[in-house]
Amino acid sequence: MTAFTSAYPGSRKVYDEQSVSLGATGDTVLRVPYREVSLTDGTSVRLYDTSGPEGHDVRAGLPKLRAPWIAARRASGVVGTQAYYARRGEITPEMEFVAAREGFPAEFVRAEVASGRAIIPANIRHVELEPMIIGRNFLVKINANIGNSAVRSSIEDEVEKLRWATLWGADTVMDLSTGKDIHTTREWILRNSPVPIGTVPIYQALEKVGGRPEDLTWEVYRDTLVEQCEQGVDYFTVHAGVLLRYVPLTARRLTGIVSRGGSIMAKWCLAHHEENFLYTRFRDICEIMRAYDVSFSLGDGLRPGSIADANDEAQFAELQTQGELTAVAREFDVQVMNEGPGHVPMHLIKENVEKQQAWCGDAPFYTLGPLTTDVAPGYDHITSAVGAAMIGWYGTAMLCYVTPKEHLGLPNRDDVKAGVIAYKIAAHAADLAKGHPRAQAWDDALSKARFEFRWEDQFNLAMDPVTARAYHDETLPADGAKVAHFCSMCGPKFCSMELTQQVRDYAASNQVTDVDALRTGMREKAEEFRREGEIYVKR
Amino acid sequence: MTAFTSAYPGSRKVYDEQSVSLGATGDTVLRVPYREVSLTDGTSVRLYDTSGPEGHDVRAGLPKLRAPWIAARRASGVVGTQAYYARRGEITPEMEFVAAREGFPAEFVRAEVASGRAIIPANIRHVELEPMIIGRNFLVKINANIGNSAVRSSIEDEVEKLRWATLWGADTVMDLSTGKDIHTTREWILRNSPVPIGTVPIYQALEKVGGRPEDLTWEVYRDTLVEQCEQGVDYFTVHAGVLLRYVPLTARRLTGIVSRGGSIMAKWCLAHHEENFLYTRFRDICEIMRAYDVSFSLGDGLRPGSIADANDEAQFAELQTQGELTAVAREFDVQVMNEGPGHVPMHLIKENVEKQQAWCGDAPFYTLGPLTTDVAPGYDHITSAVGAAMIGWYGTAMLCYVTPKEHLGLPNRDDVKAGVIAYKIAAHAADLAKGHPRAQAWDDALSKARFEFRWEDQFNLAMDPVTARAYHDETLPADGAKVAHFCSMCGPKFCSMELTQQVRDYAASNQVTDVDALRTGMREKAEEFRREGEIYVKR
Repeated sequence: MTAFTSAYPGSRKVYDEQSVSLGATGDTVLRVPYREVSLTDGTSVRLYDTSGPEGHDVRAGLPKLRAPWIAARRASGVVGTQAYYARRGEITPEMEFVAAREGFPAEFVRAEVASGRAIIPANIRHVELEPMIIGRNFLVKINANIGNSAVRSSIEDEVEKLRWATLWGADTVMDLSTGKDIHTTREWILRNSPVPIGTVPIYQALEKVGGRPEDLTWEVYRDTLVEQCEQGVDYFTVHAGVLLRYVPLTARRLTGIVSRGGSIMAKWCLAHHEENFLYTRFRDICEIMRAYDVSFSLGDGLRPGSIADANDEAQFAELQTQGELTAVAREFDVQVMNEGPGHVPMHLIKENVEKQQAWCGDAPFYTLGPLTTDVAPGYDHITSAVGAAMIGWYGTAMLCYVTPKEHLGLPNRDDVKAGVIAYKIAAHAADLAKGHPRAQAWDDALSKARFEFRWEDQFNLAMDPVTARAYHDETLPADGAKVAHFCSMCGPKFCSMELTQQVRDYAASNQVTDVDALRTGMREKAEEFRREGEIYVKR
Repeated sequence: MTAFTSAYPGSRKVYDEQSVSLGATGDTVLRVPYREVSLTDGTSVRLYDTSGPEGHDVRAGLPKLRAPWIAARRASGVVGTQAYYARRGEITPEMEFVAAREGFPAEFVRAEVASGRAIIPANIRHVELEPMIIGRNFLVKINANIGNSAVRSSIEDEVEKLRWATLWGADTVMDLSTGKDIHTTREWILRNSPVPIGTVPIYQALEKVGGRPEDLTWEVYRDTLVEQCEQGVDYFTVHAGVLLRYVPLTARRLTGIVSRGGSIMAKWCLAHHEENFLYTRFRDICEIMRAYDVSFSLGDGLRPGSIADANDEAQFAELQTQGELTAVAREFDVQVMNEGPGHVPMHLIKENVEKQQAWCGDAPFYTLGPLTTDVAPGYDHITSAVGAAMIGWYGTAMLCYVTPKEHLGLPNRDDVKAGVIAYKIAAHAADLAKGHPRAQAWDDALSKARFEFRWEDQFNLAMDPVTARAYHDETLPADGAKVAHFCSMCGPKFCSMELTQQVRDYAASNQVTDVDALRTGMREKAEEFRREGEIYVKR
C-alpha cells in the first residue's frame, strides 16, 4: 500500500494525458494528476491532486517532467518567465498544464498571467514540478510551512513533512529552515517536490553572517539568492517593503513586529540608519529572479501580530510600498504575489483585500490566516480557518496554513495534517462561495451519497476518508450499518431522509414535473401512506 | 481538584454579588459568576463563566437560587413572562443578573427584552438557573446538544455530558433524548443545570405513540408540553412552520428534509392531508408556554441539508411562516427565537440573517452552524465554525454547535469538547467583530502576555489552558523555557518580538510621544545599537 492508497481508500491516482507542441523540438505529453474516487453507483469523481508521483526513492528524486519543456525553450534561444511568454501571447506547457488541471481554456490562463492577476511559480531549475497557478480566478491554494529550526529537526524529517503535507493537499510548501544544513535540506526537498517551493532567503543570509542582522550586506544576500535560484526555489519572500520610516510606526503597537524577516530588516535599518537594502537593490533582485523565473512573494514584515494591531498605519504603509514594488517587478516580467496578515478580526478582513487589489495592481494576495481571535492558542488552525475562508472568498489567491501548535511549539505530523485539512476546508469553502466551476460537484456528490445512504461513497469522497470511516465505526462498527438506511444519530426507528425519498418517488412515479401538480397529488399520497401503514419499507 | 480548577489552572471561580429588591418580600443577593484569571503582573482578567456552582451531589441538584425570586412574584399575584415584565417597564432579578453578567445597564436589557430583540429563557420551574440572555446586542451564545438515543447512552452519561459542555462554555444545552427514560433523564438534567435547557417535545410525544408520526395527536402533544413545562424546560423547539403546502417544495432537493422534527411533521401532514397541528393549535401552545415562561425556539424543519439546497423556496417559505408565528407568540408575551440553517455556502449566509430579521420582527436568530461545505465529514466542527462565526457577526444571537462526529456518529466526551471550543471561538470572533464592549479585553490581555513572554499568563488566559501548555511543553518542556524570551518557533538566537520592545523602550526613555519625534530619534538609536553590539541583552 502506498501513502496515497492508505490515505484515500476507494480512490486511485489517475492522469489526464494530453499532447502539446514544444515547437521545433516536437511534442510532449502532459500528465495532469487527479484523485479519482470510484463510487458504488458506477460513476466516479475526479478531484484536484497535489500528492505527486509515487514510488520514487528520495535520493533519486522525482521524474524531471519539465526538462524537455525547458530544453525546448533554451533551443529557441530565449528562456523567459511565464509572464514574459504570456505577454507575448504565447501559451507555455505550464499554462496548458494548469488549464487542464483547473478546467479553464489555456488562453484564459495566459491572459490571467499576462495581466499579473495570476502567477505560475516555476523556477526553470525545478524540473520535477507539476505546474499550478495562483490567482483569484482559480481554485484557492494553500501553503504549508516546513523547516528545521535551531531547536530540533532533521533533513529526513523535512522531506517526509513535504510528502505528508502534499499528500493532504498542500499546493505549495515553504522551507523555512534556519538551522544547519540549510542548503542540503533544500536540495532534497526540491528534488522530491511536485509542488512549488518557497523560501525566505534572508534566513540563510543571516546564517552566513553569524546570525547578526546588522552584519547583513547586499553581497551576502545576492549570493544567497543566486544559490537558491540555482537549486530551483520557485518563489522568494522578500521583505523589501519594510522601510526605515515605517519602523517607528510599530512603536505603540500592542505586539510590535512579529514577522521574523520583518524584524531582521527593521533591525538592519535601525542599526545602519539606512534604507532597507532589499528596497534600494530591488531592481538588481528582479534581474536575478527573472533569469530563473522565480516569483516574488513580497513579504509583509509589518503585519499585525494581534487583533489590537490589525489594519494599522504600519501595516498599510508597507502594503503601499508592496504596490510600488509590484509595478517594478512587472517591468522585468517577474511574477509577483503579495503577502498579507496575520491577525485580523472579521470586520476588518475585507479592507485588506480591497486595499491590496487596488494598490498592488490586482496581483495575487497570499495571506497567513488571518486569525480572527487571539484567545485560543492550541486551536489557531480553527481561529484562522475562519479568517482564511473569508479572505479567500473576498479574493485572496493563496492561504498560508496555521497549525494547532502556532505560537506554542513546532508542529508534528498530526499538527501538519490538522493544519492542511483546516486550510483545505477554508479554501474549498471559498471556491464554493466564488463559484469556481469545478467546486460544487464534489459537495453534491458527497451530499447525494449521504442522502442515499451510500456510506462507503460518503467516506471515500471525504477530504479525509479514514477519519470519517473511523468516526462512523466508533458508534456502529458492524458492516451491516454501512448499507443501513439510518445512522447512529437518529437510530433505526426514525430517519428524516427517508421521507423525502418517498416524496420524490411519488413525484417520479407520477411523472410530476411541477410543484402544483405535486400538491394536487398529495391527497392520493396521504391515502397511500395510510394503506402501507409502515412507510419505512425496504426498497 | 474540581473539574473547574483542572480545566482552568490559574483561574478561580468568583462571584460578583449585588443586592436587588424583591418588592414586598425584601431583598435578594445576586451572585454573578466569573472565571477570574490571575496574571503574574498582579492584575487579573474576568471572563464570562457558564460552568455553574461546584461541589453539589447530582441527586441533590444545584442550589435553587431563583426560588425566592419566583416566590416574590407569586406573592404579588401575577407570574408573567420576562417579556411581560419588560413591556410593563419592570426590571426583574433575571434582567439585573444578565445586565451585570454582560456589562450593560439593566434598563438596556429590559428594553431589548421588551422589543423582542432578546430573550431570557427561564422557566419559572427551573429555579437552579443562572440567567442568561440571547439577543444580537449581547455576547453571542452557543448551544450544545446532548441526549441519549435508541443506539446507546445512559442517564448518568447525559448529566456528565451536561457538566462537561457547560464547563467548556455551553450557554444552553438541548436535551434531544429519544429513547427510554426521557422523563427521568430530563429531570436529572434540569435539577443539575445552571444553563437553560431546551427540548424538542415532539420527540417525546412520538415515543408515546409508539414512534408512528401519523398517530400523533394534539392531545398527546399538549400533555407532553405540560409535562415538560412542569419539569422546568426553558425553551421548546416547535416545528409549527412546516406547512402542508411546503412539503412538495422539498421534492426536487438534493437532500430533501433533514430535520427530524420537520420530517415527523411532514409525514403527519402527508398522512392526514391536514395542516400541521402545531400551526393550527399555535395559540393553545402559547397559552401553555406563557404560564411557565417557556420560550419558543421556532424550528426550521425545512432547513437545507446540503450546500446544493441552501436558501431555497422551501426554506424561505417556512421562514416567512416563522415570522407570522413570532408575531402571534408576542401577543401572548411569550418569548421567541427562530431556528435557522444548516448547510449554507459563505456567499449565501448573509441573506439568511437579513430575511430572518426582516420577516421575524428582529427576534433572536439561532442557527445550526451553518456548514460552509459538505466535503469534510469528520471535521464539521470546522466547516461549520466558519459559517457560525460569520453568521454570528451578521447578527445571529446563538449558535448551535456541531461536533466532529456530525453526520457520522454519536459524539463522545472529546467530541463534545471539540465542538464547544470550536463554537466558543466562532462566538468570540463574532463578539470582536461586532464590538461587544467586553470582548477585546480578553484578546488584548493574551496578546500582551504573548508579547511580554509571560508564558504562564498566556496559557492561563487561553480558552483551553491545559492544551496550550501541553503543546508548548511538547517542544520545550523545561521550566526555564516558560520565562525564556523566545519560543521553539524561532529558537533562542532570533526572536522578532524583541526588536519592538527596544523601539518601545527607546520611545519611553526619551519620552517620545509622537511618531515624528521618534523618527528624529532614530539616528541616535542607530548609534546606540552599534555600540551595544548585541541588542538581545537580557534586561
